[in-house]
Amino acid sequence: MPDVPVHPGDPTGSQHLTDDEVAALDAHWRAANYLAVGQIYLLDDNPLLTEPLRPEHIKPRLLGHWGTSPGLNLVHTHLNRVIKARDLDTVCIWGPGHGGPAVLANSWLEGSYSQTYPAVGRDAQGMGRLFRQFSFPGGVPSHVAPETPGSIHEGGELGYSLAHAYGAAFDNPSLIVACVVGDGEAETGPLAASWHSNKFLDPVHDGAVLPILHLNGYKIANPTVLSRLPRAELDDLMRGYGHEPIHVTGSDPAAVHRAMAHAMDSALDHIAIIQRTAREEGVTERARWPMIVLRTPKGWTGPAEVDGVPVEGTWRAHQVPLAHVRENPAHLRQLEQWMRSYRPEDLFDAEGRPRPLVLDCVPEGDRRLGANPHANGGLLLRDLPIPGLERHAVPVDKPGTALHEPTRVLGGLLERVMAETGDRRDFRLVGPDETASNRLQAVFDVTDKAWQAETLSTDEHLGRHGRVMEILSEHVCQGWLEGYLLTGRHGLFSCYEAFVHIVDSMVNQHIKWLKVSRALPWRRPVASLNYLLTSHVWRQDHNGFSHQDPGFVDHVLNKSPEVVRVYLPPDANTLLSVADHALRSRDYVNVVVAGKQPCFDWLDLEQARAHCARGAGIWDWAGTEDGTREPDVVLAAAGDVPTLEVMAAADLLRRHLPDLAVRVVNVVDMTRLMPSEDHPHGMSDLEFDAVFTRDKPVIFAYHGYPWLIHRLAYRRAVHPQMHVRGYKEMGTTTTPFDMVVRNDLDRYRLVMDVIDRVPGLSGRAASVRQAMEDTRTRHHAWIREHGTDLPEVADWSWTG
Amino acid sequence: MPDVPVHPGDPTGSQHLTDDEVAALDAHWRAANYLAVGQIYLLDDNPLLTEPLRPEHIKPRLLGHWGTSPGLNLVHTHLNRVIKARDLDTVCIWGPGHGGPAVLANSWLEGSYSQTYPAVGRDAQGMGRLFRQFSFPGGVPSHVAPETPGSIHEGGELGYSLAHAYGAAFDNPSLIVACVVGDGEAETGPLAASWHSNKFLDPVHDGAVLPILHLNGYKIANPTVLSRLPRAELDDLMRGYGHEPIHVTGSDPAAVHRAMAHAMDSALDHIAIIQRTAREEGVTERARWPMIVLRTPKGWTGPAEVDGVPVEGTWRAHQVPLAHVRENPAHLRQLEQWMRSYRPEDLFDAEGRPRPLVLDCVPEGDRRLGANPHANGGLLLRDLPIPGLERHAVPVDKPGTALHEPTRVLGGLLERVMAETGDRRDFRLVGPDETASNRLQAVFDVTDKAWQAETLSTDEHLGRHGRVMEILSEHVCQGWLEGYLLTGRHGLFSCYEAFVHIVDSMVNQHIKWLKVSRALPWRRPVASLNYLLTSHVWRQDHNGFSHQDPGFVDHVLNKSPEVVRVYLPPDANTLLSVADHALRSRDYVNVVVAGKQPCFDWLDLEQARAHCARGAGIWDWAGTEDGTREPDVVLAAAGDVPTLEVMAAADLLRRHLPDLAVRVVNVVDMTRLMPSEDHPHGMSDLEFDAVFTRDKPVIFAYHGYPWLIHRLAYRRAVHPQMHVRGYKEMGTTTTPFDMVVRNDLDRYRLVMDVIDRVPGLSGRAASVRQAMEDTRTRHHAWIREHGTDLPEVADWSWTG
Repeated sequence: MPDVPVHPGDPTGSQHLTDDEVAALDAHWRAANYLAVGQIYLLDDNPLLTEPLRPEHIKPRLLGHWGTSPGLNLVHTHLNRVIKARDLDTVCIWGPGHGGPAVLANSWLEGSYSQTYPAVGRDAQGMGRLFRQFSFPGGVPSHVAPETPGSIHEGGELGYSLAHAYGAAFDNPSLIVACVVGDGEAETGPLAASWHSNKFLDPVHDGAVLPILHLNGYKIANPTVLSRLPRAELDDLMRGYGHEPIHVTGSDPAAVHRAMAHAMDSALDHIAIIQRTAREEGVTERARWPMIVLRTPKGWTGPAEVDGVPVEGTWRAHQVPLAHVRENPAHLRQLEQWMRSYRPEDLFDAEGRPRPLVLDCVPEGDRRLGANPHANGGLLLRDLPIPGLERHAVPVDKPGTALHEPTRVLGGLLERVMAETGDRRDFRLVGPDETASNRLQAVFDVTDKAWQAETLSTDEHLGRHGRVMEILSEHVCQGWLEGYLLTGRHGLFSCYEAFVHIVDSMVNQHIKWLKVSRALPWRRPVASLNYLLTSHVWRQDHNGFSHQDPGFVDHVLNKSPEVVRVYLPPDANTLLSVADHALRSRDYVNVVVAGKQPCFDWLDLEQARAHCARGAGIWDWAGTEDGTREPDVVLAAAGDVPTLEVMAAADLLRRHLPDLAVRVVNVVDMTRLMPSEDHPHGMSDLEFDAVFTRDKPVIFAYHGYPWLIHRLAYRRAVHPQMHVRGYKEMGTTTTPFDMVVRNDLDRYRLVMDVIDRVPGLSGRAASVRQAMEDTRTRHHAWIREHGTDLPEVADWSWTG
Repeated sequence: MPDVPVHPGDPTGSQHLTDDEVAALDAHWRAANYLAVGQIYLLDDNPLLTEPLRPEHIKPRLLGHWGTSPGLNLVHTHLNRVIKARDLDTVCIWGPGHGGPAVLANSWLEGSYSQTYPAVGRDAQGMGRLFRQFSFPGGVPSHVAPETPGSIHEGGELGYSLAHAYGAAFDNPSLIVACVVGDGEAETGPLAASWHSNKFLDPVHDGAVLPILHLNGYKIANPTVLSRLPRAELDDLMRGYGHEPIHVTGSDPAAVHRAMAHAMDSALDHIAIIQRTAREEGVTERARWPMIVLRTPKGWTGPAEVDGVPVEGTWRAHQVPLAHVRENPAHLRQLEQWMRSYRPEDLFDAEGRPRPLVLDCVPEGDRRLGANPHANGGLLLRDLPIPGLERHAVPVDKPGTALHEPTRVLGGLLERVMAETGDRRDFRLVGPDETASNRLQAVFDVTDKAWQAETLSTDEHLGRHGRVMEILSEHVCQGWLEGYLLTGRHGLFSCYEAFVHIVDSMVNQHIKWLKVSRALPWRRPVASLNYLLTSHVWRQDHNGFSHQDPGFVDHVLNKSPEVVRVYLPPDANTLLSVADHALRSRDYVNVVVAGKQPCFDWLDLEQARAHCARGAGIWDWAGTEDGTREPDVVLAAAGDVPTLEVMAAADLLRRHLPDLAVRVVNVVDMTRLMPSEDHPHGMSDLEFDAVFTRDKPVIFAYHGYPWLIHRLAYRRAVHPQMHVRGYKEMGTTTTPFDMVVRNDLDRYRLVMDVIDRVPGLSGRAASVRQAMEDTRTRHHAWIREHGTDLPEVADWSWTG
């Protein structure tokens, strides 16, 4: 039964849709349903059912999700109506993206599919191709995917639709972002947290999000939690999330069409009022935004029963309701009846073209959901105005003597970018409450933290129009940023290093999205997703073991090499150079790991740029090679803390073993270590050998898990000589230097490693080794007693 | 202002606490606050402030979180009261576990700390040690951690408290699990999803969870979302989550004590009514469980202002309110005033022992929160009754001819375990709606899916007392299971392989917890956390690229080797053997990757047991070695699909190149590949060389990312000869065989790899290689045309 409560706003009277209007909407909906079924079942022959279905018309493997498709088709049909009637600029996020057949069907109907893929025309032959390609090897995925026109949201892994929708809406004041949330997806954590995004949506500078919670009642094999709540409890929940629910419930198509049209109009009128009062009347009270609860049967209009058990309206409609169509004549007959129930002859002409009635609701040109440029954000992307680095760089008269907090220096650059985009509003910073903790607070000189909820007099830097986004949910941060980037804007995610693992699975999906998108010529490049990982493993002095995990780099480096980039700048100026590069880049995921604690400056800006451009190189000024022969040993570092320890070790070696020819190597771009066949940044063997030698001992101090270096470099000639130190889960609440000692990454251990591995050293080396060992012992006693680091460590600076 | 609305239930009149009762509660609370401050600031000297504070009394590094501590102390004080008054069996999950000083203070006060750590006595010397050790190198972590008596929840990474609480409550009918949820944590996705756990809590067989949402208003540098909602909106949210909120608001201690006591009594009375009506009267309607909203100032009773800016009641109270106590005499004076404001002389006698008034509310023995055995679950753990595998094993007359679905076979075993624990109720299966999809549905013969919400006549296997837990949130599944295991029970998490990455960060924390726990003699071993990862990367025929990710193994293998185990059983019987081992084990995280699709049976039960006990070994029956010399080549596999391809490749080689001596190796336990120094399961070089040879070509077909094998085996003699095939992100919607072809893991490619790498082969080998290449070409054409695999692939079985 349709069920539309009274609702604030100004309904346009669509509850009085004429019968003709209902008939037109229903024709479009039936056409989309027909096409969805066709994609799941049919090969390319007989798409219009001009002859009886035969087994050879049926795909050998029946794959796809029918259950959610009719609901998505209903939403698409009604979005078409309001877009056309109101000339709306609209995109839709299809949370139940498993229902790929529905979104593809609609794109084909409105013509955006054939425009994007001319081989699949809007005629019988094209319809056949549309059917065959679906879930067919070499064809198109069964979910909404990069290949799907009008989408910025993969429908495979669930949980991120609403955050994506908000990301798309931010700084797009004229955009309406509809977002279908499946009731399965609604059980996930990220989705549950995303509802509160409305406390961060600015009705003045942002667009609107219209959530449509689709309660079809079932997941794969279970009812959903939200569908089994009493109506009043669900309403409490939605109101608690800050929304005003509008219900559409039913299974009679005509009644649901009327109710849905009314609900859409009501919601859009309400949105228009909120936006007008905020924009024209200066109302600042947080609005209660409308949302729609759509309750229709799972697998609606599909087989009511199959083999004697109920299917429509149950979880059994989730995937393929009739599973044995090729082999079972009764199933084949039932499929044919089902498809004919949509009356295809009324929907398509003899050439397979949709009849005018079907297309009556469809908008034109870029207004079509499958053609809206916001869903192909690269079309709208502008270069970010990044100022010259000179005014932000720190001067370096002598390396290793002055200290700066690298992320604070970066904050200065970001402040300028924020200022330069003040009018354009196409740059945002996201993070879980850590912008200031991560020392990026210079940005608050020019913008605020977005905040629409109550403010108190003691609050600082909260503002309705702010472009720094802080919510204590890495998931929501990531989802917002993905939505923002995929609609053609720029951003940076600053995060504690350990807790970026919270979004491991989300970044997987984003990398997959970018990998596929890059191969689609019609998808224009978008800005890279940039991570600044700070508060890193080596500097969790008080948070300890739970906050120590450098493994995100490993996670990301498993993914498609054409997309992933990892940088470990060793100081402030290299961080500036890396950030500048990352912010200008396209279609990458850039992971930048950098410290927020005071760190020695090693390179001036010019040197930093050159070093970052090489990605890895010899710091000849830091070693003791004389250039006449190969070094005795290579001391390599990747990461700021390893660089400090390597430099201190080089310092010790220069003073204690001056005859040893030590080469110091620094790696900024981790993918330089990979073979050139495996990553576009990979060094050739010739280059690699020139830096690391082919056969000298290499003591490599790495920021993260040491075996990552082996995994990247195992094919190199020098690999058997490589000895890597890094983090090996020996973590706790302690001082920075004690952390490196616990993990055998400290300067004294590195010197011992050198002595242990360089053949033919003198007796002097043995006594130096003993002195190192003794210093480590002294460290252990000192820290137990004083709780601080040895004075010679605390006071060290570069003397070379 | 205190603010306690009328509430259903039967308040015991505690709103009429006598002034003496209030004074006693307040004394306990002040003592805990005093001890929390002392831990953050003081070394071991002068703990009772018997002399004026001097800089040398102060820690050199001030680390810790004051902001949340007074609130946690208030909750602990009032839990003490009700535990003692009602003789409750209670544990508490401290969501804002950053407030470690609070929980440690309370444990010391009640004596459980000194009982656990006798060196830290309940006297002045012990108080000094308690202070000094906090966040001090070699001391105790600043968060609630495994070292903290009474805890099962690390307070570092936020989001999991409520799921842990429910996990603890399941199947513990007499247990009350209090759970403090911080308003920062409440913004996370996992926490937001966890509220709905009450739809899965059985009031008959499960205990109760009492959530206490602590709104102190701020995160690190921001207000929290929930604290800035209007009261009515927050109430809507809590009611929408299925709870009845009880509010306690204020900053006047006496008033808050009265309100809190009333709220606690009211909530517990309400819980008692729910349990009685369900247990004695058979009421099955889902209850609206009580919860408490506690709104008190952040850093309550701490410095109101520091250096002229407000601190108490703002985000500035988050960590250390007075940051420069050693250097700044004014700060030192302010600290002393602050500590003396608690009137320590009234709280502790001259020997530093808590005075009787302070201990008035403290319960005795195991009732103390720091001593409750449920929080040291190994104390309560019983061996799981696992039946003999014989009746579940599949017969194998000839390897590689019959097919079984391995997870379905495992389902039979799990059904028996479920049946055997029917009365004990200490085994649960969790998963995001995939128990049946993953073919484990035999368990539904003996139990149901837990479900307290509405049911319909078409529902199947839903039951109020079920022990299969399905919610579409990997986070909640993981949190439930962790809570269940840490309180001394058993379980298994079945999950799609790709989406287990959703809990990457949670498993990090659990592994860290186990690593630390193993080193604490008083923490008794708990059952391992067992993952069954199925619906794996190679068999996502219709879900495609978004569902293809085998990287969880890489993620887990970065962690502490004493905790992590990874198994890839190649068939049904090996899966049984691995599962049997995993379910019996303690203190591990076992990752088992196994297919749900029909898979050839290779080993009978006896062979399977022997193979799994070795973890990796030669399948001599599958190779063509004659035993007189080393093989020409080693074909190794890890994983079910790689095993299939390796066996098919061995089959091809035997038929086409019968003179080639091929050794077939199968790896079940991935950690066997690691050096024995790096993992307790690692093979010695001698063992490794005996299996893989020292210098023959090894073609290794691996289930996941190929470089993992290199990372594990890089130190082995044969490593330069190892050539690994695996998943390299070449995914899409396609057939199983096309997936292996796309990733160069197919049998034909493996044969080509052999021919390319074995030196001195005949001309015949070149023509065999060409035939393999041709077959791959035929495959590409066939699948484009038919959408299925070549008949010779589809029909293949082992002919050896």
